[in-house]
Amino acid sequence: MQNPYYNEAKASLIIRKLQPENKEAPIQFMEAPITDHKLFYRRNHFSYPRLAQANYWLPVNGHVRTPKLFSIDELRKLPSRTIKVTMECAGNKRRFFEPKVFGEQWEKGAISQGYWKGVSLHTVLQQAGLKQGAKEVVFEGYDYGVRTDLDAVVSFVRSLPLKKALHPDTIIAYEYNNQPIPFRHGFPLRLIVPQWYAMASVKWLKQITIIDQEFSGPFQTIDYMYYPNKETNDNAQPVTILNVNSIIQKPLHMEILNTGIHPIKGIAWTGKGIITKVEISTDNGETWSEAKIQNQTHGHYGWVTWEMNWKITKKGEFTILSRASDSHGRVQPATPLWNRKGYGYNAIDKVNIKIE
Amino acid sequence: MQNPYYNEAKASLIIRKLQPENKEAPIQFMEAPITDHKLFYRRNHFSYPRLAQANYWLPVNGHVRTPKLFSIDELRKLPSRTIKVTMECAGNKRRFFEPKVFGEQWEKGAISQGYWKGVSLHTVLQQAGLKQGAKEVVFEGYDYGVRTDLDAVVSFVRSLPLKKALHPDTIIAYEYNNQPIPFRHGFPLRLIVPQWYAMASVKWLKQITIIDQEFSGPFQTIDYMYYPNKETNDNAQPVTILNVNSIIQKPLHMEILNTGIHPIKGIAWTGKGIITKVEISTDNGETWSEAKIQNQTHGHYGWVTWEMNWKITKKGEFTILSRASDSHGRVQPATPLWNRKGYGYNAIDKVNIKIE
Repeated sequence: MQNPYYNEAKASLIIRKLQPENKEAPIQFMEAPITDHKLFYRRNHFSYPRLAQANYWLPVNGHVRTPKLFSIDELRKLPSRTIKVTMECAGNKRRFFEPKVFGEQWEKGAISQGYWKGVSLHTVLQQAGLKQGAKEVVFEGYDYGVRTDLDAVVSFVRSLPLKKALHPDTIIAYEYNNQPIPFRHGFPLRLIVPQWYAMASVKWLKQITIIDQEFSGPFQTIDYMYYPNKETNDNAQPVTILNVNSIIQKPLHMEILNTGIHPIKGIAWTGKGIITKVEISTDNGETWSEAKIQNQTHGHYGWVTWEMNWKITKKGEFTILSRASDSHGRVQPATPLWNRKGYGYNAIDKVNIKIE
Repeated sequence: MQNPYYNEAKASLIIRKLQPENKEAPIQFMEAPITDHKLFYRRNHFSYPRLAQANYWLPVNGHVRTPKLFSIDELRKLPSRTIKVTMECAGNKRRFFEPKVFGEQWEKGAISQGYWKGVSLHTVLQQAGLKQGAKEVVFEGYDYGVRTDLDAVVSFVRSLPLKKALHPDTIIAYEYNNQPIPFRHGFPLRLIVPQWYAMASVKWLKQITIIDQEFSGPFQTIDYMYYPNKETNDNAQPVTILNVNSIIQKPLHMEILNTGIHPIKGIAWTGKGIITKVEISTDNGETWSEAKIQNQTHGHYGWVTWEMNWKITKKGEFTILSRASDSHGRVQPATPLWNRKGYGYNAIDKVNIKIE
């Protein structure tokens, strides 16, 4: 007989689109604090790039005193920094917007976290020497393709304002969880921008260019903008810092449970300061109690895990909510800020369950 | 460099629950007419059973003249039958009921199809010889576990009325797609009941018992019943034959496309007769046109594939519908028959798209 004792079920990525590959993490089923690269969500704008086998050099040019080419070895010899970072796609939870929003229907798993090791971008820019008037740093990835709205072939390019670019924790990473960055996640070099939505963390870095003006590329003037109006582009704002957010991992949405004691658990994260409080309601918001936060984020940019035990002796239907607050006074809202492209969803998380 | 040319994205099963393992097929991304066993949806009521390595015998007993024990070899020596069958979980599409229904939130992929080879149950029952008064055939699987509603450990057991049991295409299968049945799908022997929802196709067959009365077990008197009322069990009906049904595989729900020509394609299936028509609307039901059915199901129980090309020159939001009809005059309804446990969803399929 084949495998008669095989009894193990594994979680795997959840497909949203095959070309380009977009898959979310099975976040409800992930207990490990660090995301194995196989379960790291995948968000691509284009087909995977084809990189040359050898001769990988990273140019740093533009508004600098000395344009430079860095080999990976050179970057590895510079002082390194390892940071734990929550990476979240700006479109995470898009499926939950009402009215519905077009685009990849991410549920709650376009988020992952782990350790990125690299060199501070600051260190690299110092070697090139910024000229007076430098204003932004532009990052180009090797990935490219047709944008039908522009009727043009474009690369994935994003910029950072100088202040964020020079933060010591903005790094050019070459390792994820102590291994070379997996190809699908940006090998060999990926920009890592903690606290910003992950579109800022450009994969497959091809070149870095310093400019003396504001960058305008389609991935930050057309996409990754909050458009609060359905029909016009009025009051558009760029997508940058992660909103304060949380999810309930257990119980599962629409699960049927019995009376007794059940753990309610999940994660919470923010792009500003730290998570200070996660409140749980088991009566759809009438009353709240604080969950226990299990690993505070001082000194890193990961998520916290939280948990509480719920004793339920009554049968019926229940709505469980989680609401996180951060040290900048931000609290998850009851209603998300609707926007036409569906970014930054962070309403109070909700699961419905039935006790039988 | 590692894998720099790796550019392939693969579809995989979509997790709904880990314990027991419940995963659906990535049906929108499956082009092959036959489901590879790795992409066959998994629906379990309990943990996977642990089967003894050797000494697998199938008892056929109860209301028979000669109780029998069959080895797999003996069954393989009997005349075989290979049938192409669409297997669909009764809870497929449960997530789309309104009001929402508790339980596994299957979307559209709790369905798969392939070739099952085995011996007609009829042949096996003939060898045992049914006694006068035989009324139902009871199938017990090796899978078992606690049902908290009954506060008891129970096996997965289902029965068939004699007429369905004796249909030559009701088989005891030992192969799927020319290979031994994969363990997760019922190895070594699985009952295959074409045209019924898949709960009838009992996995890991442990024994077959002929009875002279109606069987009542929790998997056909508590579960797998249509309960049209939220609070009472009035007017309950057993879940048996597949409803007429269809899905749109392309385009994807909430996809953003450009003007031009787009294929609209999908599959359709029924538990009664054959699919006679699949109608498509691209204006939310105002007008309909017939899709081309590509492989008719005469002589097997598989699904049909269908396709049409859609030329769209106008920008805006569109709702695409698919509506299948079968040779018994059944047509997918606009609204599904709501039932408390969420079985048999077969409303007209719908995807929303945006043309930019």
